[in-house]
Amino acid sequence: MNSIGTVFRITIFGSSHGPGVGCVVDGCPPGVVISVEGIQAEVDLRKPSAHIGTSRAEADRVQVQSGIMNNTTTGAPINLYVENLDKDSSKYEKFRRTPRPGHADLPAMVKYGEAHDLRGGGQFSGRMTVPIVAAGAIAKALLRGKGVEIGAYTHAIGEVVDMQEYQVPNVQKIAKHNPVRAMTPEMSSRMEREILDAKKEDDSVGGVVRCLVSGLPMGVGEPFFDTLDGELAKMMFAVPAVKALEFGAGFRAARMRGSEHNDPFQMVDGSIRATTNHAGGVLGGISTGMPLDFKVAFKPTASIARAQRTVDLKTREEVMVKIEGRHDPCIVPRAVVVVEAAAALVLVDLMIRGGYIARQC
Amino acid sequence: MNSIGTVFRITIFGSSHGPGVGCVVDGCPPGVVISVEGIQAEVDLRKPSAHIGTSRAEADRVQVQSGIMNNTTTGAPINLYVENLDKDSSKYEKFRRTPRPGHADLPAMVKYGEAHDLRGGGQFSGRMTVPIVAAGAIAKALLRGKGVEIGAYTHAIGEVVDMQEYQVPNVQKIAKHNPVRAMTPEMSSRMEREILDAKKEDDSVGGVVRCLVSGLPMGVGEPFFDTLDGELAKMMFAVPAVKALEFGAGFRAARMRGSEHNDPFQMVDGSIRATTNHAGGVLGGISTGMPLDFKVAFKPTASIARAQRTVDLKTREEVMVKIEGRHDPCIVPRAVVVVEAAAALVLVDLMIRGGYIARQC
Amino acid sequence: MNSIGTVFRITIFGSSHGPGVGCVVDGCPPGVVISVEGIQAEVDLRKPSAHIGTSRAEADRVQVQSGIMNNTTTGAPINLYVENLDKDSSKYEKFRRTPRPGHADLPAMVKYGEAHDLRGGGQFSGRMTVPIVAAGAIAKALLRGKGVEIGAYTHAIGEVVDMQEYQVPNVQKIAKHNPVRAMTPEMSSRMEREILDAKKEDDSVGGVVRCLVSGLPMGVGEPFFDTLDGELAKMMFAVPAVKALEFGAGFRAARMRGSEHNDPFQMVDGSIRATTNHAGGVLGGISTGMPLDFKVAFKPTASIARAQRTVDLKTREEVMVKIEGRHDPCIVPRAVVVVEAAAALVLVDLMIRGGYIARQC
Amino acid sequence: MNSIGTVFRITIFGSSHGPGVGCVVDGCPPGVVISVEGIQAEVDLRKPSAHIGTSRAEADRVQVQSGIMNNTTTGAPINLYVENLDKDSSKYEKFRRTPRPGHADLPAMVKYGEAHDLRGGGQFSGRMTVPIVAAGAIAKALLRGKGVEIGAYTHAIGEVVDMQEYQVPNVQKIAKHNPVRAMTPEMSSRMEREILDAKKEDDSVGGVVRCLVSGLPMGVGEPFFDTLDGELAKMMFAVPAVKALEFGAGFRAARMRGSEHNDPFQMVDGSIRATTNHAGGVLGGISTGMPLDFKVAFKPTASIARAQRTVDLKTREEVMVKIEGRHDPCIVPRAVVVVEAAAALVLVDLMIRGGYIARQC
Repeated sequence: MNSIGTVFRITIFGSSHGPGVGCVVDGCPPGVVISVEGIQAEVDLRKPSAHIGTSRAEADRVQVQSGIMNNTTTGAPINLYVENLDKDSSKYEKFRRTPRPGHADLPAMVKYGEAHDLRGGGQFSGRMTVPIVAAGAIAKALLRGKGVEIGAYTHAIGEVVDMQEYQVPNVQKIAKHNPVRAMTPEMSSRMEREILDAKKEDDSVGGVVRCLVSGLPMGVGEPFFDTLDGELAKMMFAVPAVKALEFGAGFRAARMRGSEHNDPFQMVDGSIRATTNHAGGVLGGISTGMPLDFKVAFKPTASIARAQRTVDLKTREEVMVKIEGRHDPCIVPRAVVVVEAAAALVLVDLMIRGGYIARQC
Repeated sequence: MNSIGTVFRITIFGSSHGPGVGCVVDGCPPGVVISVEGIQAEVDLRKPSAHIGTSRAEADRVQVQSGIMNNTTTGAPINLYVENLDKDSSKYEKFRRTPRPGHADLPAMVKYGEAHDLRGGGQFSGRMTVPIVAAGAIAKALLRGKGVEIGAYTHAIGEVVDMQEYQVPNVQKIAKHNPVRAMTPEMSSRMEREILDAKKEDDSVGGVVRCLVSGLPMGVGEPFFDTLDGELAKMMFAVPAVKALEFGAGFRAARMRGSEHNDPFQMVDGSIRATTNHAGGVLGGISTGMPLDFKVAFKPTASIARAQRTVDLKTREEVMVKIEGRHDPCIVPRAVVVVEAAAALVLVDLMIRGGYIARQC
Repeated sequence: MNSIGTVFRITIFGSSHGPGVGCVVDGCPPGVVISVEGIQAEVDLRKPSAHIGTSRAEADRVQVQSGIMNNTTTGAPINLYVENLDKDSSKYEKFRRTPRPGHADLPAMVKYGEAHDLRGGGQFSGRMTVPIVAAGAIAKALLRGKGVEIGAYTHAIGEVVDMQEYQVPNVQKIAKHNPVRAMTPEMSSRMEREILDAKKEDDSVGGVVRCLVSGLPMGVGEPFFDTLDGELAKMMFAVPAVKALEFGAGFRAARMRGSEHNDPFQMVDGSIRATTNHAGGVLGGISTGMPLDFKVAFKPTASIARAQRTVDLKTREEVMVKIEGRHDPCIVPRAVVVVEAAAALVLVDLMIRGGYIARQC
Repeated sequence: MNSIGTVFRITIFGSSHGPGVGCVVDGCPPGVVISVEGIQAEVDLRKPSAHIGTSRAEADRVQVQSGIMNNTTTGAPINLYVENLDKDSSKYEKFRRTPRPGHADLPAMVKYGEAHDLRGGGQFSGRMTVPIVAAGAIAKALLRGKGVEIGAYTHAIGEVVDMQEYQVPNVQKIAKHNPVRAMTPEMSSRMEREILDAKKEDDSVGGVVRCLVSGLPMGVGEPFFDTLDGELAKMMFAVPAVKALEFGAGFRAARMRGSEHNDPFQMVDGSIRATTNHAGGVLGGISTGMPLDFKVAFKPTASIARAQRTVDLKTREEVMVKIEGRHDPCIVPRAVVVVEAAAALVLVDLMIRGGYIARQC
């Protein structure tokens, strides 16, 4: 359903071509200083960049309808709302007969029937990540107050992969200042080229977002089932187009020996640190005190202008379909801030659950 | 915490070296035919194989303490219990001072304090998967009644990877008949060799389990957040040693073009089918009607007999530690049935939620 | 927190003097026919009647921001929003120092601190029942489709008690047509007098709402803990000013003998019916097939114009306080539709859980 | 379903005539000192007293299967198990055809079908309160560590009502030392007589339990929906035979004026206290700092030896039925410790949620 989180919980609503999108943030502690402008700044990071993104131009102005007074959370539920302004629903009706490959059209019509809102993907739209980013801004403010910082960047676009290691402060400083959210000028230009190549061919391309979190104390996570990695995983797979997730060495761990993969302990300036971080900051479902480190794989945007094979549900015949809506040739750059926000929401929830952040005065 | 599932929910309890392990299965519909022997047969598949597994020899006899009468579920909660018999806790006390690399010892002691049961990993032990497998047997019986079949097998051990494609019925027929849970005699012997090589060197090795599910109707999953892939992901990351997960093309999707990744539709014998399954059977968080297909990466067993660097928490000095307990050099073969059971539990929960399986008469 | 329900769930937000109040209705099946006007009509029933209610005059116009298209639910979350227009917050600041007797001011300030929004009771306000009534309109539409009908009326105001028995159709026909929501002209005028007497003396008065539900099938409720009566009880105690609840004979049952209280079975026109309904339609936490019958006691409105003893939190001295806001001398007449809506929300949730109402197509 | 609580959660299992009953207590903080004997002592208080209770003689020996080591909670889930020893199921088969008035037999058979375990009431049995009391012992230990004390007593049996006021320490000292759980010798003998009169006539009688809680800090409860009173209400209605519940003045509040019902504030020894407690310690769904005070009404035991009218489900004819099992003529004295335990479980859950009790180290 449309809520996630146990004690810090968001509930999203809206659809791509309805009046708007939004969310309720419930369980936010009172006294958190956050302005509408602070929330807006995060939402703006999700906007498409003209030359590599969609031409749908949404203002995405965040309205706060409850829970914040004098730039401070009151402890009551917070409602954030964004109107949809630049809708063009004219091209969607035909997909009721000819479901788009790579989209949930067909199973969604089976599940929700005639009443399903197919326009722009309806409730399945990437537009539903607007409220996630808005709510994430509040979560980030809470984390920052506890010394927890999040930084995500574009690790790969298509065949271009950034194999270097980075630290959170650098990621925060650099990635948001280029439209691809890359960590070096070279990566930025190579990745941009990858996107433009796909675009030129009426095609799309996938990629990988890497997310790092510093400052997490040891023990965050509620095993056996509400683990740090599991809660993050559930959240990440809700982000449209995500197909894979790995922590630390991830799939590479499957090819390693224990003597190689285990992160040995050492003393560094009087504190215990691991010498490596193959675990990605999580063991037994709880944080180790090392940076959290995970990668999320995004498939190429399903909507492409090229003709694709599908079936006419009425005639039961195979036909070709072209998606003429306005779409991003690669969703990854815009997904970077979504991954950060989604991670922040999970971390605040688990930190309140563990008592690291107080729910009330 | 220790419950998972919304309307079909299991709650596990126990620890590696306590009196026993078990679970409560709540929300199971009445009238499901299942015998203790049927449950036992699944639990037996999780047992170690003498030459490639641990020497800890647990009988793992399943006791049904409620909810099943005359080999039929009554609709009341089912309690399954397995006594721990072959415990050797003598070697664990020292790890309170010298936490084991690759284990949750250190953050767990910070989280739970002095009272934490460290013996055999306590509540973090792989032994907690016994009740998951037992409960999974009931879930599988429910699924079978709806034509849904699950088959998992060992896709990779260390560097040995099985690149062939298989169908569920074959997986069910073949994998459980060799100790490695491999799909061909050649794979079985090469993978076994990989495990024995690691063992010989007092080391361990990781691997990948692939899980296929056939017969799922379209639309299973409860977006936006309780997605089919997200719920499976949360469950899989609770399984000890899991570090990565991918659906269909997974990480490979990040390198693909949309025209290549999208699964086109065709008509096959009067029904609509996709020509490929790069999506792995899930789009927009709901099932597509194609087989569910996901891979789970397991890290190498953290416990190895080799000396490893750690820190003495009392002296704050770096020391070496050797893990002398009885451990599997590779957990993957035993994890195959765990992955199947874990998947079955998630699928039943989502199918009841969607109305595909009735909760009551 | 601010969500209630397991599979049909509402999340409310807003505060008495903030921008507005609203809710998200999640888990509503697709295809339910409901117009904004239909929702508005229910919300209008909650409005105060000039001579016996508050002078705060809110238009309470319902806006649908998602989930309903062409007067039909789409299966996506529904967001309902109502702006606050007639706010007068000038008189509330002083209550930070002199908490109002009978209100949650003092513990709320301890819990939420300086940031707590005290104006008009903030998130504790009776105004939070506006979205409950709006969401309830959708729930009622769903129930009506299954033959389940709800009727509540004013059973008592102060010392005036209506001891007659009524059936749901009559309650639905009569109660809403007089401002007191009474069942006879005589009761209406006697109860109105009770209210006006209290008002004249700058005082308030309590009362009892009785709620009847017909058409519920046998077996609704999810024992052991998510019982029909327990879920209704949790919901009812969330309604501001509720202090007591009883099903069927209720407290009277404590004085009865089993031979008197047990409802014997008989055959009526070929179906099994109980001859009496002391159980109030619920046994063992599930519906019996007899009408659901419960009473909810409301305390007198806490806000009264009379001087009351309180304490100045700064000087720590006892002082007198007068509440000069605009308040209802008796909340009961306006609470009748709230009780109906609250009951409807619980019933739909339990009926979807039990499979009586389908969640999807 | 069979779990209750959000962060401190119990899951019960078992049935009246199955192998046993028990529960999992999840979310219990590590380091709580509790012995099996301590748990057993509470469970023993639930046992029937020979002359006024049932003749079913269960040893009710509590086994701890996990989560407690060296008389201390480890932070892992706690499993408590009690075997059923004195079962006599011979008399229940006939009730499949002739459902017992006042029991859930008929709707339960409709809901769960043929597989429903009807013996002794199955999962609806009062025996399910054994694990509630056992878990409650742990909750009480936690509360005691925070200065929160619970005392319940028999307020009424049939027509005998104890109108005096008491304080928690006296309740704790006196009530458990007489089989009726009354507060004075006079009440004890009059109430006992009421029970024996009913028993003599092959009948049963109801009553009221009053529960007081001292030491609760201000602000416990999570409005809008997870209120202190609402969570207690949901829990209490799960206790078999409960039909009504009121806080403080309760139903009496409906007849009061605001000037009379509001509890004014005063200074007492430097702290703010209310002069009265008509609110029963809860306003706006959160604790006020005054003692929590609520009453729970129990109907007379449904099982009575007298002949009662029912219907033969096969012949569809009206017949008489006699319940020959072993039953309590009045359940109230045994329910006193159940109400205490149930309250303790709710309070610990809400106190952990509010941060009054730490979940971890």
